[in-house]
Amino acid sequence: MRHSYVLMIYERANIRQMAGYVPGEQPEDGSVVKLNTNENPYPPAEGVMAVLRDFPADRLRRYPNPTAANFRGLAAKVHGLKPENVLATNGGDELLRLLVTTFIPPGGVLAMAEPSYSLYPVLADVQGARTLRIPLKDDWSLPGEGDFADKANDGGAALTIVVNPHAPSGRLTTVSDLADLAKRLRGVLVVDEAYVDFVDPDLRHDATQLVRTLPNVLLLRTLSKGYSLAGLRFGYGLGPPGIIEPMLTKTKDSYNTDALSQALAEEALSNRDAASKTWQAVRSERQRLTQALIQRGFEIPPSQSNFILPKPPAQGPNASALYESLKNQRIFVRYFDQDRLRDRLRITLGSPEQNT
Amino acid sequence: MRHSYVLMIYERANIRQMAGYVPGEQPEDGSVVKLNTNENPYPPAEGVMAVLRDFPADRLRRYPNPTAANFRGLAAKVHGLKPENVLATNGGDELLRLLVTTFIPPGGVLAMAEPSYSLYPVLADVQGARTLRIPLKDDWSLPGEGDFADKANDGGAALTIVVNPHAPSGRLTTVSDLADLAKRLRGVLVVDEAYVDFVDPDLRHDATQLVRTLPNVLLLRTLSKGYSLAGLRFGYGLGPPGIIEPMLTKTKDSYNTDALSQALAEEALSNRDAASKTWQAVRSERQRLTQALIQRGFEIPPSQSNFILPKPPAQGPNASALYESLKNQRIFVRYFDQDRLRDRLRITLGSPEQNT
Repeated sequence: MRHSYVLMIYERANIRQMAGYVPGEQPEDGSVVKLNTNENPYPPAEGVMAVLRDFPADRLRRYPNPTAANFRGLAAKVHGLKPENVLATNGGDELLRLLVTTFIPPGGVLAMAEPSYSLYPVLADVQGARTLRIPLKDDWSLPGEGDFADKANDGGAALTIVVNPHAPSGRLTTVSDLADLAKRLRGVLVVDEAYVDFVDPDLRHDATQLVRTLPNVLLLRTLSKGYSLAGLRFGYGLGPPGIIEPMLTKTKDSYNTDALSQALAEEALSNRDAASKTWQAVRSERQRLTQALIQRGFEIPPSQSNFILPKPPAQGPNASALYESLKNQRIFVRYFDQDRLRDRLRITLGSPEQNT
Repeated sequence: MRHSYVLMIYERANIRQMAGYVPGEQPEDGSVVKLNTNENPYPPAEGVMAVLRDFPADRLRRYPNPTAANFRGLAAKVHGLKPENVLATNGGDELLRLLVTTFIPPGGVLAMAEPSYSLYPVLADVQGARTLRIPLKDDWSLPGEGDFADKANDGGAALTIVVNPHAPSGRLTTVSDLADLAKRLRGVLVVDEAYVDFVDPDLRHDATQLVRTLPNVLLLRTLSKGYSLAGLRFGYGLGPPGIIEPMLTKTKDSYNTDALSQALAEEALSNRDAASKTWQAVRSERQRLTQALIQRGFEIPPSQSNFILPKPPAQGPNASALYESLKNQRIFVRYFDQDRLRDRLRITLGSPEQNT
């Protein structure tokens, strides 16, 4: 009997010391106006719900296709790529975790723009990796002329993550600036395109060309926002085979996406017209809400995403007070108590009534 | 332009060197008799399919509950535990990966019985951990009188995984033997109970008491086999809060289980009567097929699982030849080309017609 019955600590030291990720509040109460976690305000496409209703019991009984082969073929076609350029994942979160697991050794470095999605440093902590935070410029753009890449390279970054459009500002970096960054980086560049569906189509922003021409670029896509399927957990990566293959064949869980989500994701991607109507609606509301708040004295960076980051006028209540006041009115927005963000609110664009 | 356009290797050295897990074949053709991946031959409960058909679009649109709180409460009630003893995961595979991530430092040791589920060493490889394989005795039981624990402790195992009933033999280790093992181990003991629903209820086998009394035991459960939901990817862990909490709050992906799978899993666990009828049917077939093969000269270890591990008689075709011959008849079973297994087949128990 070698076991001592005192309190034992079994988890690794780095896990014990780290803090976990804190998701945005998810009130169960449906009557709340929920503008805090960047969900699409419109329902999933009717065709997606039809696939759900008609889903055969036998496909639930059996293991799913381990690589979501049909989805990969479809996504390749949609993006003008090949199936070996596509990895399907259990939400974009799984893809981010796989990238850290696969490309950053313990003790290695993850570089990211600061501020950015607060999950990235958490994933680095789990891996026992370090996070290098490279501050964005005052206008939320990446430090240019190679400054950003130099800092990442000098810091020894094995992986650099840039969310584009940027969260939480909504600022869009051009494809040519991304190409320049990727070419300068010695490690892998991840472009988290969680919000790319909401970019104004007139800009003709399409980063998939980077996947065809560069060996170290991975684009992250998700169905959570653009396709109103946050509850489904389905994301995918687009990248050169050298980046996709180790995650596909080695580091992902053996059956990482389930049979239902594969079928619904296939339908969602097959019929993008339904989703693209919601993107247009969100863009209209982005313009309307931005204008209305600017008229009330708010300062707002130009957003190409489904949220905005307004800074309240100096003479009124501050961001923290506004957050609490809205919450008391059962309107949830996101407040980040951290540098450069504590004077602002991140407001997800809801339906016209919600925004009003 | 520092990038050289030669072939670059970006993944970590341990990932590059390792081999991935190879899932059992999943022929798309439904006409195949599929006895190779331990699926339940009977469909999911009608109530589960009803929840699926009636699933509200709005729950797909919104993020799921990040911890599957309702499911955790329900599972706690079913097993006589508390919600803090329960972790819901994207299949049992995710739980295994989380255990390795959370409790084994890079360079640390995972101990396992040999032979066993071939995924375990793959997860160790991903983590940059070593695998210590401790051979089972000739009758597929764990080396007793502390031998197994001594080997794991001497090897420095931070985590030890035992699948019970054992795969691929089906042999059941008693709860008191598991308690003895856990008390001797300095690290965490994982009991992979993927197949426990198929144990004869007359044996009154219930390892959940270990979770209440020991600080280092985690039980893995899955809905894949017992509840005919392999396509859904839903598993859960039962353990003391010290083991559950770091995975729940730090190392799992922020929304690791989706809204649909949470709802279906709740229904499946709420109404276990439907599933338990399939367990009884599988047990009947286990007895019938075992007897029939023994009469034909096969040697078969006593199984408490939903598969058997017959060794063909010496005078007939060997296991490898039988595997190929069955495959040509469109009957898929599993053949493992490794020590102690290459003279056997693992046959999942199907429906009576399939087994016949």
